[in-house]
Amino acid sequence: MSTPVFDPPALESGALRVTPLGGLGEVGRNMAMYEFDGKILLVDCGVLFPEEHQPGVDLILPDMEPLKDRLGDIVGLVLTHGHEDHIGGVPYLLRMRQDIPIYGSKLTLALTTAKLKEHRITPVSNVVREGEKRKIAGFDMEFVAVNHSIPDALAVAIRTEAGLVLHTGDFKMDQLPLDGRITDLRHFAKLGEEGIDLFLPDSTNADVPGFTPTERQIGPVIDQVMSKTTGRVVVASFSSHVHRVQQVIDAAVNNGRRVALLGRSMVRNMTIAEQLGYLNVPEGALVDYKKSHDIPDHQIVYMSTGSQGEPMAVLSRMANLDHAITPGEGDTVILASSLIPGNENAVYRVIDGLTKLGANVVHKANAKVHVSGHAAAGELLYCYNILKPKNVIPVHGEYRHLTASANLAQQTGVPEENTFIVENGTSVDLKDGEAWVSGQLDLGFVYVDGSSVGEITDADLKDRRVLGEEGFISIIVVVDSKTGKIVTGPEIHARGFAEDDKVFDKIRPKIVQALQEAAEKGVRDNHALSQVIRRTIGRWVGQRLRRRPMIVPLVIEA
Amino acid sequence: MSTPVFDPPALESGALRVTPLGGLGEVGRNMAMYEFDGKILLVDCGVLFPEEHQPGVDLILPDMEPLKDRLGDIVGLVLTHGHEDHIGGVPYLLRMRQDIPIYGSKLTLALTTAKLKEHRITPVSNVVREGEKRKIAGFDMEFVAVNHSIPDALAVAIRTEAGLVLHTGDFKMDQLPLDGRITDLRHFAKLGEEGIDLFLPDSTNADVPGFTPTERQIGPVIDQVMSKTTGRVVVASFSSHVHRVQQVIDAAVNNGRRVALLGRSMVRNMTIAEQLGYLNVPEGALVDYKKSHDIPDHQIVYMSTGSQGEPMAVLSRMANLDHAITPGEGDTVILASSLIPGNENAVYRVIDGLTKLGANVVHKANAKVHVSGHAAAGELLYCYNILKPKNVIPVHGEYRHLTASANLAQQTGVPEENTFIVENGTSVDLKDGEAWVSGQLDLGFVYVDGSSVGEITDADLKDRRVLGEEGFISIIVVVDSKTGKIVTGPEIHARGFAEDDKVFDKIRPKIVQALQEAAEKGVRDNHALSQVIRRTIGRWVGQRLRRRPMIVPLVIEA
Repeated sequence: MSTPVFDPPALESGALRVTPLGGLGEVGRNMAMYEFDGKILLVDCGVLFPEEHQPGVDLILPDMEPLKDRLGDIVGLVLTHGHEDHIGGVPYLLRMRQDIPIYGSKLTLALTTAKLKEHRITPVSNVVREGEKRKIAGFDMEFVAVNHSIPDALAVAIRTEAGLVLHTGDFKMDQLPLDGRITDLRHFAKLGEEGIDLFLPDSTNADVPGFTPTERQIGPVIDQVMSKTTGRVVVASFSSHVHRVQQVIDAAVNNGRRVALLGRSMVRNMTIAEQLGYLNVPEGALVDYKKSHDIPDHQIVYMSTGSQGEPMAVLSRMANLDHAITPGEGDTVILASSLIPGNENAVYRVIDGLTKLGANVVHKANAKVHVSGHAAAGELLYCYNILKPKNVIPVHGEYRHLTASANLAQQTGVPEENTFIVENGTSVDLKDGEAWVSGQLDLGFVYVDGSSVGEITDADLKDRRVLGEEGFISIIVVVDSKTGKIVTGPEIHARGFAEDDKVFDKIRPKIVQALQEAAEKGVRDNHALSQVIRRTIGRWVGQRLRRRPMIVPLVIEA
Repeated sequence: MSTPVFDPPALESGALRVTPLGGLGEVGRNMAMYEFDGKILLVDCGVLFPEEHQPGVDLILPDMEPLKDRLGDIVGLVLTHGHEDHIGGVPYLLRMRQDIPIYGSKLTLALTTAKLKEHRITPVSNVVREGEKRKIAGFDMEFVAVNHSIPDALAVAIRTEAGLVLHTGDFKMDQLPLDGRITDLRHFAKLGEEGIDLFLPDSTNADVPGFTPTERQIGPVIDQVMSKTTGRVVVASFSSHVHRVQQVIDAAVNNGRRVALLGRSMVRNMTIAEQLGYLNVPEGALVDYKKSHDIPDHQIVYMSTGSQGEPMAVLSRMANLDHAITPGEGDTVILASSLIPGNENAVYRVIDGLTKLGANVVHKANAKVHVSGHAAAGELLYCYNILKPKNVIPVHGEYRHLTASANLAQQTGVPEENTFIVENGTSVDLKDGEAWVSGQLDLGFVYVDGSSVGEITDADLKDRRVLGEEGFISIIVVVDSKTGKIVTGPEIHARGFAEDDKVFDKIRPKIVQALQEAAEKGVRDNHALSQVIRRTIGRWVGQRLRRRPMIVPLVIEA
């Protein structure tokens, strides 16, 4: 089901080309490349978290290959908001060229700068606000306030001679957000009247009917849970969700409790949010974790990370009795978060562990303690209707989300031929209000594992899957370099294979025999002899044990 | 968080002992052992499917260790219904003793017999019906009809001199089931009046508020989807869900379509269900798959397996273009099934693949095409109230489910001290209406991988996880057996590790040096030299690449 790859032609004069480098057909590593008049404007540079078929991988980056020879043409990087799937890849981009000017809101750039500091990079930052305009090369940018599950998110309108593009970044349309900063539909209306030639909307929730409920409904639920709890309260959520944390702090104050922040990213992000005025902390509402042990149980709330069951995060460690705080009888743990697909078993293990310790566990399945950060179908209809875009590329989603978003666009009157369901690497050109697919680059996954970036291939991951499922058997034979006779071995070792070593006693003579027969036929090449070993033992293990471990034969001359 | 293990005392005369061997703290491998007067009655013998931290494992069996020395004491095995988590372990039990008499309903035993045939075992079967009584040794059994997501399920009441026990097996309380066979509350009422001393209820959905909707509501949804589809329809569901398949067949007939069954287990189970009269197939409603290709698209329905995204099942293969049937534009695929935790990413990959091929995909998230097979909290309250049991052991669930069920019991008046939240291996004794925990056996997981049963240990699984996440590096050094000098090597090979082999050029001299230093200190033992290699390369890889692959050093004398 691979799409045919074809190079786009040289960009027509006066035309704009947009190429998503990540975020299509996946939720993560969002990145788009806009080209006009020989210059490149980038929007977002995020990471994707690996799934179970990508074992051992820490992060996945957008494939930035198309940028490598054109680093000098890049005139700017716009960051729509401070989530990892939009800023997590910035250090890797800046390693290629450190002085790319970055544009974004105050909070977004503060979070990005903190991340870059860990990579020992100081960025060239340009803070922008909603309503502001900036011109870089042929790109006339205008920033629009949008509401999301992190404060200070911005959409960006990009004007070039080719037309007007609106790129939303992540957003939803909470009409009563905690900070009063709604997605600016008046601004959308103005852009719509001017005429939007190309619209790239966040489509993550396009297949969810109706409307995302307001974040504001969660506060009272948390407040009520706290008021009923006689012991300690632990709340776990995403470490960038300032408004969720705000509601936890407010509920704590209301219940005569103080809040201790737990987890490195939680402490770092909330410190930044407070310093910049996004998080309102009443006098004495926060307490340092180290001092929290002196506070009576009914006066403390721990605000922690680990809501996705991440094994090293605070919440999992609590459930495994591997943390100083161990919730028990009388205590309540609230998982105020979504359940990201693939994390279910890990999260349920944490819930079971905490329940077993005696804690009361409140989570999405039994209380209204989470709302999504993305616009559902009903909200997207508002957007499509107020914007009336000529052309649409749904972004930020799996294929089914992009399809659902395109269907919504069509229901509001966008012609089917003007909705583009495309992939990472598909270039769409725009000129005079017309848009068309101009090329398909061959982009891949760039895996980060430890300190290696881009070294791991899909073949390596396949090896890991085989090793992880079946283990390996290594067979070492030392042969005399002159006579070809076996000096030592076969030595057979297995790991993750689990059978008693004695099981190999029966196969050793067969390997010796197979090697002798090969030698008699004149086979002397080590690689060929390795193959003989591989076949002999592979067949035997398959037939006898119905297993397919990795076979690692090695013939050494001594 | 491990429970203290202690051997139960010899069973008091006139007392009954129940020990769950599986199914507690997990959903799967259900098995309970009842002992009275020196004899053993078993109820169910299922398998558990592995989670992601148990890589490469095919199945997990109950730990039958407590039975091994007492095979002669077993007087019978009751099977409550024909699901894998209740019958899948039977072949492994019968391998220990083939002539254990099995009791169960007609459909349950037919499915079990078909399974045993694949293992070349012919069981000693005793078909029983609801309302029937059987006495084996000191156990007086009475079977009660219950409704579940497979027909012909039975609860079993067990009378001994110690009192009356009710063991539900899986059940729900659909008041309008397709076959009219409801959970027999009249019978429950009668047993309740007699006085239930110990109740073991299916608690899987005890934390789901309200009531499980009727299976009957799904038929019209499927019917409507079929009527709107101009092309082919594919429905995927569980291969034992006779009533779901019945509704698909009925909807197909209603829409002038014929049904082709796809997938080995689907064909086998539905053939048995039809032969025994549990599946009603109107004349000509089914068509052999091989003949289905001649039927026009708007007249065919494929009923397949693979609703959990299993990579080798029909539906995944369709999504990967690895099957003769490739759904596309105009076709509709219905996933009429639940989403078992841990399978989400696999299922979404299938949904995206099918969407990409152009098919319309209908699933639980966008239509009412599945209901659970287990009683929700509201239904369990009915049971507790009508039965008024003296003592309760919630079974069939994770810890959070068992706790929720115990809470429901307590809300209906069962004293907290009479609700036992126990683990696999906990023995509970019953005598004169009193129940108490008498012991805790040390039971483990028995892993099946290929044809090996019980060989794989948790240490092997840990090895597999390390190998799967990080790969391995093997280092082979051949030393002269007399001088201890290096003859060949170090040869370094890595798999799943992904770095260029050249990376090792820098470490090779360090290994040689470390070995020389060790030799100078008089170290000659191969194991000690291996440790030197392990430390040298392990430290280097950790510091340089921030990785922790498995290090497999090998010193060979030649």
